[in-house]
Amino acid sequence: MASVSAYLRKNRQRNLDELIDLLRIPSISTDPGRNKDVRKAAQFVKKHLADSGCTKTELIDTPGHPIVYGEWMKAPKGAPTVLVYGHYDVQPPEPLDLWETPPFEPTIRKGKLFARGSADDKGQYIIHPNALRAHLETNGTCPVNVKFLIEGEEEIGSPNLDPFIKKNLKKLKCDVVVISDTHMMGKKTPSICHGLRGLAYLEIEVTGTKADLHSGTFGGAVVNPANALVEMLATLKDARGKIKVHGFYDDVRKLTPKERREYKKLPHDDEKYRRSLGAPALWGEKGFSTLERISARPTLDINGIWGGYQGEGAKTVIPAKAYAKISCRLVPDQDSKDIAKKVQAYLKLVSPDSVKVKVKSLHGGEAWVAPTDHPALQAGSRAFKRAFGKDALFTREGGSIPVVATFDKLMKVPTVLLGIGLPDDGLHAPNEKMDVDQFHRGTEAAAYLLEELAR
Amino acid sequence: MASVSAYLRKNRQRNLDELIDLLRIPSISTDPGRNKDVRKAAQFVKKHLADSGCTKTELIDTPGHPIVYGEWMKAPKGAPTVLVYGHYDVQPPEPLDLWETPPFEPTIRKGKLFARGSADDKGQYIIHPNALRAHLETNGTCPVNVKFLIEGEEEIGSPNLDPFIKKNLKKLKCDVVVISDTHMMGKKTPSICHGLRGLAYLEIEVTGTKADLHSGTFGGAVVNPANALVEMLATLKDARGKIKVHGFYDDVRKLTPKERREYKKLPHDDEKYRRSLGAPALWGEKGFSTLERISARPTLDINGIWGGYQGEGAKTVIPAKAYAKISCRLVPDQDSKDIAKKVQAYLKLVSPDSVKVKVKSLHGGEAWVAPTDHPALQAGSRAFKRAFGKDALFTREGGSIPVVATFDKLMKVPTVLLGIGLPDDGLHAPNEKMDVDQFHRGTEAAAYLLEELAR
Repeated sequence: MASVSAYLRKNRQRNLDELIDLLRIPSISTDPGRNKDVRKAAQFVKKHLADSGCTKTELIDTPGHPIVYGEWMKAPKGAPTVLVYGHYDVQPPEPLDLWETPPFEPTIRKGKLFARGSADDKGQYIIHPNALRAHLETNGTCPVNVKFLIEGEEEIGSPNLDPFIKKNLKKLKCDVVVISDTHMMGKKTPSICHGLRGLAYLEIEVTGTKADLHSGTFGGAVVNPANALVEMLATLKDARGKIKVHGFYDDVRKLTPKERREYKKLPHDDEKYRRSLGAPALWGEKGFSTLERISARPTLDINGIWGGYQGEGAKTVIPAKAYAKISCRLVPDQDSKDIAKKVQAYLKLVSPDSVKVKVKSLHGGEAWVAPTDHPALQAGSRAFKRAFGKDALFTREGGSIPVVATFDKLMKVPTVLLGIGLPDDGLHAPNEKMDVDQFHRGTEAAAYLLEELAR
Repeated sequence: MASVSAYLRKNRQRNLDELIDLLRIPSISTDPGRNKDVRKAAQFVKKHLADSGCTKTELIDTPGHPIVYGEWMKAPKGAPTVLVYGHYDVQPPEPLDLWETPPFEPTIRKGKLFARGSADDKGQYIIHPNALRAHLETNGTCPVNVKFLIEGEEEIGSPNLDPFIKKNLKKLKCDVVVISDTHMMGKKTPSICHGLRGLAYLEIEVTGTKADLHSGTFGGAVVNPANALVEMLATLKDARGKIKVHGFYDDVRKLTPKERREYKKLPHDDEKYRRSLGAPALWGEKGFSTLERISARPTLDINGIWGGYQGEGAKTVIPAKAYAKISCRLVPDQDSKDIAKKVQAYLKLVSPDSVKVKVKSLHGGEAWVAPTDHPALQAGSRAFKRAFGKDALFTREGGSIPVVATFDKLMKVPTVLLGIGLPDDGLHAPNEKMDVDQFHRGTEAAAYLLEELAR
């Protein structure tokens, strides 16, 4: 492997230049005006897979944006097959005025590469074809077979990915999935995420009257739907931060004493964390630490609320309708459909008769957690140790990558989340960046992983 | 007077056309982008006063929108002086998609003139210059002196009106004030409002963190300001509809048994009223009838609420900030400044330490109630009887016209609220309208009032 790492050191500029070329393409999947750019990015990914040594590459059309597939299947007999998943689409860059340099003109400042998609996920997925290329160009072979599944709809909820996977189980057959789309704890604290939360997202509509009313003429006659909405939403949690929806915690898998000990070992400073958020205080479900609350406990948040007048000054209106979007982050073994139903039932229960209430479920996804002693996760840990010089910690993240639950359920294979991002990368925000050093070390780790998975 | 009413019948189209021209001007006082239109409306009002016979008209600049003044002072010696107050500014028309025809393109459908401001207050104040004109063009004179004070900031709380009145007490000196900015009970039930509620309007800003957060990565770490806001707002009322702000009811003047008997005599059908609003049920403070609740009891309503994502679909964000606008309708002898302070103190009390809360008072006004046997109110009653053919009932309204309390306090003169609107005019709402027949009869009543006040 000495020669693979030497090869990668020699090819740092080439890897960086290729990433920069990809980052120039504004492949914003949610914006129909960018459909051509999304396709252009797919074509780039396909060509790059071929340049990296894939013997077969395909651009597969879907009802939405294309999926790119590639494979190199010439490993020694008996070697496992690795499926790399990633995505080439990006979030919209707005608000534009907060970017120090334009989102699609990649710029390096103080060792950081600023561009939309630099960390999420162009600058992460691409380390894997680069790793394959390093093996092939150094040794003429790779210790494992490698398949690539790089989609263009992750940022819009991957509507066409699950159907594609279901139809192509044989084509995608593998022993382990590898995804780089998360972050490690810090530059000097390599870590591997082994758990993700699920999601149940709902929208509530409360109707009081057939039209907005003057709050002077009619105030006192009817229930104001905005007042009704806040009263309903206020009953969702108690003073200790527990969610009061009936049966909400029924299927929550309890943290074991061992897991709680592992959480305590993770480097985390509540006060530093609080300051980084600019919050007056941290707060959440009593009886759990901050790290436990944001990754191993379910939550309920209002993601949006609106009704009545939002402009300057005073408008004396009783709104006809008021709305809220709420979502729950879920943990194993909660079921997103079951939780959505329970929240709907609870909201119906606490809604007054004097207003009409509709609650619709918008979307959901399941939580996932993998045992840290699984051989694939241990291989990831060793790869990180070789690249970063330190043992990798195992962490859980609070967000959702629904495809991980899909691979678990449909293909019964483990997933290694070899995330090389950093916590301050600014995902979905202005000035998203990828640390350049992190990118190069991450590419090395990806190369070592292919070797470690062969053991 | 026969000839005055004949003149008005002949000039119906002219009066209507002039109103339509005024309604075309989007004089939205709360929107700085409409400042030019507000001024344009002021100029229209000034010209119309001159066209109506005023011998002196002025457009008076204020730190905000201009005040229009006009006078005709040639009545027979000893005749009283009437001051007509009104406003030419209007509420914002949003939500625009609910208007059947555009708010500033006045349209007559089935005898109703639809436009923002048609009832509040352009289509009401304007009957008074038209009445003066009818007298002058019919008889060459008018039985009383008439002054006009038409402002452009009523919908934003008249910040510059009280200072102007205080500085111009001599100029505005009069024996009685007449205002048409309320409604009567029905087309066949003429009524005169002798009581109004006051107002205390506040805006609440709750800040959680310095920026929006991803609800997956951070959900569980901090108090979501939208959750905090709904929890605070939900504590404002109890299950019986009582407002829980400490000291809120301290100065509320109790309804006398006689007043409660008078209320019972007014024609009102709860079920019909409920259907007209399209509400599943009527609801309010226990122990009071609907009419009492909407005119003689104080209220608290959320007028607007917002925070986080309001678009299509799901965005998993914990908003950095959440906002609400709330207002209380007040009754004698509550003081709007005192109530604003009490609400602010209460909200501070119920706000959690883990968020920052700002509550600012936007504007306020005092409640007012007049004795129904006052000669000026009796003159109004006779004018209505002549125009509508039926005795006028005396009612109280739930809205606020703070200037009525100002005239009461600063000028010690009675006010006659000769409102010609109807309960379903849709004030401050989409599809605001003025019944065309009501407009013409109202103009007649205004002309009769000038005569009745001379007796």
